[in-house]
Amino acid sequence: MSIYEQGLAPTEVNHVPLTPLSFIERTASVYPDYPAVIHGDIRRTWRETYRRCRSLASALAGRGIGKGDTVAVMLPNIPAMLEAHFGVPMIGAVLNTLNVRLDADAIAYMLEHGEARALIVDREFHAVIGDALARLDTPPLVIDVDDPEYGEGEPVSDLDYEAFLAEGDPAFGWHWPDDEWNAISLNYTSGTTGDPKGVVYHHRGAYLNSLGNQATWSMGLHPVYLWTLPMFHCNGWCYPWTITAQAGVHVCLRRVDPQRILTLIRQHQVSHLCGAPVVLNALINMPDEAKAAIDHPVNAMTAGAAPPAKVIGAVEEMGISVTHVYGLTEVYGPVTVCAWHGHWDELPLEERAAIKSRQGVRYPTLEGVMVADPETLEPVPRDGETIGEIFMRGNTVMKGYLKNEKATRESFQGGWFHTGDLAVWHPDGYVDIKDRIKDIIISGGENISTIEVENVLYRHGDVMEAAVVARPDDKWGETPCAFISLKAGRDGLSEQDVIGFCREHLAGFKVPKTVVFGELPKTSTGKIQKYVLRDRARAL
Amino acid sequence: MSIYEQGLAPTEVNHVPLTPLSFIERTASVYPDYPAVIHGDIRRTWRETYRRCRSLASALAGRGIGKGDTVAVMLPNIPAMLEAHFGVPMIGAVLNTLNVRLDADAIAYMLEHGEARALIVDREFHAVIGDALARLDTPPLVIDVDDPEYGEGEPVSDLDYEAFLAEGDPAFGWHWPDDEWNAISLNYTSGTTGDPKGVVYHHRGAYLNSLGNQATWSMGLHPVYLWTLPMFHCNGWCYPWTITAQAGVHVCLRRVDPQRILTLIRQHQVSHLCGAPVVLNALINMPDEAKAAIDHPVNAMTAGAAPPAKVIGAVEEMGISVTHVYGLTEVYGPVTVCAWHGHWDELPLEERAAIKSRQGVRYPTLEGVMVADPETLEPVPRDGETIGEIFMRGNTVMKGYLKNEKATRESFQGGWFHTGDLAVWHPDGYVDIKDRIKDIIISGGENISTIEVENVLYRHGDVMEAAVVARPDDKWGETPCAFISLKAGRDGLSEQDVIGFCREHLAGFKVPKTVVFGELPKTSTGKIQKYVLRDRARAL
Repeated sequence: MSIYEQGLAPTEVNHVPLTPLSFIERTASVYPDYPAVIHGDIRRTWRETYRRCRSLASALAGRGIGKGDTVAVMLPNIPAMLEAHFGVPMIGAVLNTLNVRLDADAIAYMLEHGEARALIVDREFHAVIGDALARLDTPPLVIDVDDPEYGEGEPVSDLDYEAFLAEGDPAFGWHWPDDEWNAISLNYTSGTTGDPKGVVYHHRGAYLNSLGNQATWSMGLHPVYLWTLPMFHCNGWCYPWTITAQAGVHVCLRRVDPQRILTLIRQHQVSHLCGAPVVLNALINMPDEAKAAIDHPVNAMTAGAAPPAKVIGAVEEMGISVTHVYGLTEVYGPVTVCAWHGHWDELPLEERAAIKSRQGVRYPTLEGVMVADPETLEPVPRDGETIGEIFMRGNTVMKGYLKNEKATRESFQGGWFHTGDLAVWHPDGYVDIKDRIKDIIISGGENISTIEVENVLYRHGDVMEAAVVARPDDKWGETPCAFISLKAGRDGLSEQDVIGFCREHLAGFKVPKTVVFGELPKTSTGKIQKYVLRDRARAL
Repeated sequence: MSIYEQGLAPTEVNHVPLTPLSFIERTASVYPDYPAVIHGDIRRTWRETYRRCRSLASALAGRGIGKGDTVAVMLPNIPAMLEAHFGVPMIGAVLNTLNVRLDADAIAYMLEHGEARALIVDREFHAVIGDALARLDTPPLVIDVDDPEYGEGEPVSDLDYEAFLAEGDPAFGWHWPDDEWNAISLNYTSGTTGDPKGVVYHHRGAYLNSLGNQATWSMGLHPVYLWTLPMFHCNGWCYPWTITAQAGVHVCLRRVDPQRILTLIRQHQVSHLCGAPVVLNALINMPDEAKAAIDHPVNAMTAGAAPPAKVIGAVEEMGISVTHVYGLTEVYGPVTVCAWHGHWDELPLEERAAIKSRQGVRYPTLEGVMVADPETLEPVPRDGETIGEIFMRGNTVMKGYLKNEKATRESFQGGWFHTGDLAVWHPDGYVDIKDRIKDIIISGGENISTIEVENVLYRHGDVMEAAVVARPDDKWGETPCAFISLKAGRDGLSEQDVIGFCREHLAGFKVPKTVVFGELPKTSTGKIQKYVLRDRARAL
């Protein structure tokens, strides 16, 4: 045994479980009078917010809820949602944030599978939650949130959230986790096929990704953060914890409305926001007078589908600095970033945007990323051409899928997490997604990246949004089928115009053979639902 | 067992040992052509620096050195010192940075106690190392660094550092630690009484304190960092790792010379530096023309003794923004910070500086700090008056003292690390050091904070540096004795002048009874050696 292993075991003095809960204790202690939450007319300091979180923890404990119990929430980005991110894990319980767009079947499945002991619900979801609860044999304790910014709807239960907080002790001595590997939250994947899978996060990973967000974005103290990204989505990419660590302001937002976003940005001098490209797309399509509201530095982090180069360029022209990240529910949200090089600033906007649309390199808090053969896990050459699957390993990879050892094992096979995303690896080490494994089109034996085709479509001035999927074809196996929504007043575009435009910018076999115009179906987080479009393409 | 503990154990996919070595791999991969090191005429990129670190690791491995072996270095802040912070732990070995001011006895003790297998030495220390090695039965492998910026002196051995690197493979596949609790470095405390104690750091703590430095300082990407703080001191407060994580530039510096510091700040647009207050003091005492060199934002982090309010004020007037931190060798360098509140900016300079001289609150990466009774560990009231000892716990507290279980146990007694520093706790939760336990003066049963008296002395326009210690006294037990060095050309000040000045600003019992003029003895890190002064006071 080395001399460094003798009498030097961990003790309670030098080994304390990592947890993002430590952030709120510190921020409330150091900056008690700084603003923490803005929501409509509500203004709360860090002292108040910390007291409310402890009241929530204490009240839950008073109802017999504790370590390893699940507390579900069905809430928009309102103060109660933020409070749940601290109050629930403060007693060792696990926060299950439900996607507010889900139907009663899915909600009932999650409440049952996750074994929720309590459920905190905003009145907006009165109907769907009523239906979901009716399907359960042993419904959880239900707490009704009557948000003044909603101000309508019927109570979901007779237990009011504010009354429930009043049951608790605002000076409650919360429980530091006894192990950083303890679960902190449960996030169900959208699950387009089969039952949703419950992704379990732990305190260690949540702490580290929170620091990773801050370091990656070089975020200073006291950011003003606008909640354009749903907190139910990967725990808002861990930003409930990051912004709290930085003693920032959480500016709440019940729904994504571009005019309201611009108003809040101006009113509160918002410094940071996150969102799917569709949020940015909505902003750039606002009238110029509205866009002029942004007269101070604003930083946007975007992920989800790769934002088309055109969108990134237009957003930057508005004065919003875009950081492009990439991640999945299974890795706590973003874990790679298109880390910027100063000399790229001198490139023309179009080129710059194309570089920025790459998914980039690992966060400092994720230990490994590679692009490799999906079967052999052999890394692909860094040639910017060979397509492989993105694999990850590190401390911000999930604990696993709840009650689903088979799925956990499969997704961790070979010592790496299988993302299911296909990409090329550029010579500079930057990852560049070409498609989801299930989205890629194989036409006459050739791979077609739907993202590449979409990027071309977005360059057409009349196109608002575009999505390309495979359409079955007797001769070629599959051919590209484009679904397009047009900008207001630009309805003169024909299928032949689109095909002609693509022919100028793409190899012939990549050009869509079919073009369909109309609104595109989207998930609650603003992702275009390609499986719906695939069904439509199949039925054409 | 909770559902969250079933089938969800850590695996190699989702639990990877934390290590600051991951930073250099990432930075060299993402920013290979960015500058990493500036030293005299030497300019090296991150690609080159990473290759040199791997060469060092590989060459050490080639000599049979590996996991748990100690590699000592006796180096100023030169590139080889930075390389050792990565190359040594890359093979699981432990870096022991020797204080370059130590004498042969102390060096021999450390090499023997730490069981060093190799020693990397700059020629400047040829003589003392020769003496130290002569005392050893089994001397380590000695590697001679011939730094062009020194350019003189005799070789310490016939194994040249550059030739040694050439033995190694610059593409060496280094070893990720198998456990984040593994030792990464060994730092001997200065040990004014008894043998020096070997403080052991681990990979987990070094990683976390590196991130904590960045978050606390809100440090952006690509800082230009000037090495005014010795890297041998608490591994340069973990900044070899922090600056690397941020893909910054390490501007090396063999010795603290205020003119050279100002030249380098201007020449390389230095953005950050750290140092004891004596470094800042040296800068403010430079002629105005020299100080005018600073025409861009510079951030200084200072600790060690509490910097007198006057020094902080004068430095800020130069345009250097000061962040005041506090720590000890046992906690990886700084772990508390005087976190700033925006509205304090409106206070007069003197008041602002007084607030800033407090040691403040915990880093986000240290889990606990308290001021408590040294015996009972009962927290003192937060009244800004009751003196107690500072205690700490968290992930950046050392692994323990090497081969000294008794000292480890004593310093961790009661579940907290005993700092030996006395402080008050202000109502706002900020810690304010009054003295080292061994420095405080007890006069007629009253405690006198030597720091309080020194702060008054520094407000006198003729005083360059001041230190106050206890002088034995038959009537009072002890009385304050002031040692003062005067600014150039200000030698008219008398003992009575000083006493009279103090009487205006201090309670009578706190006023020095004795005043001694002359240069003050200092440690290699610029701390005034109070034990030397105590001996002198005793002999008066």
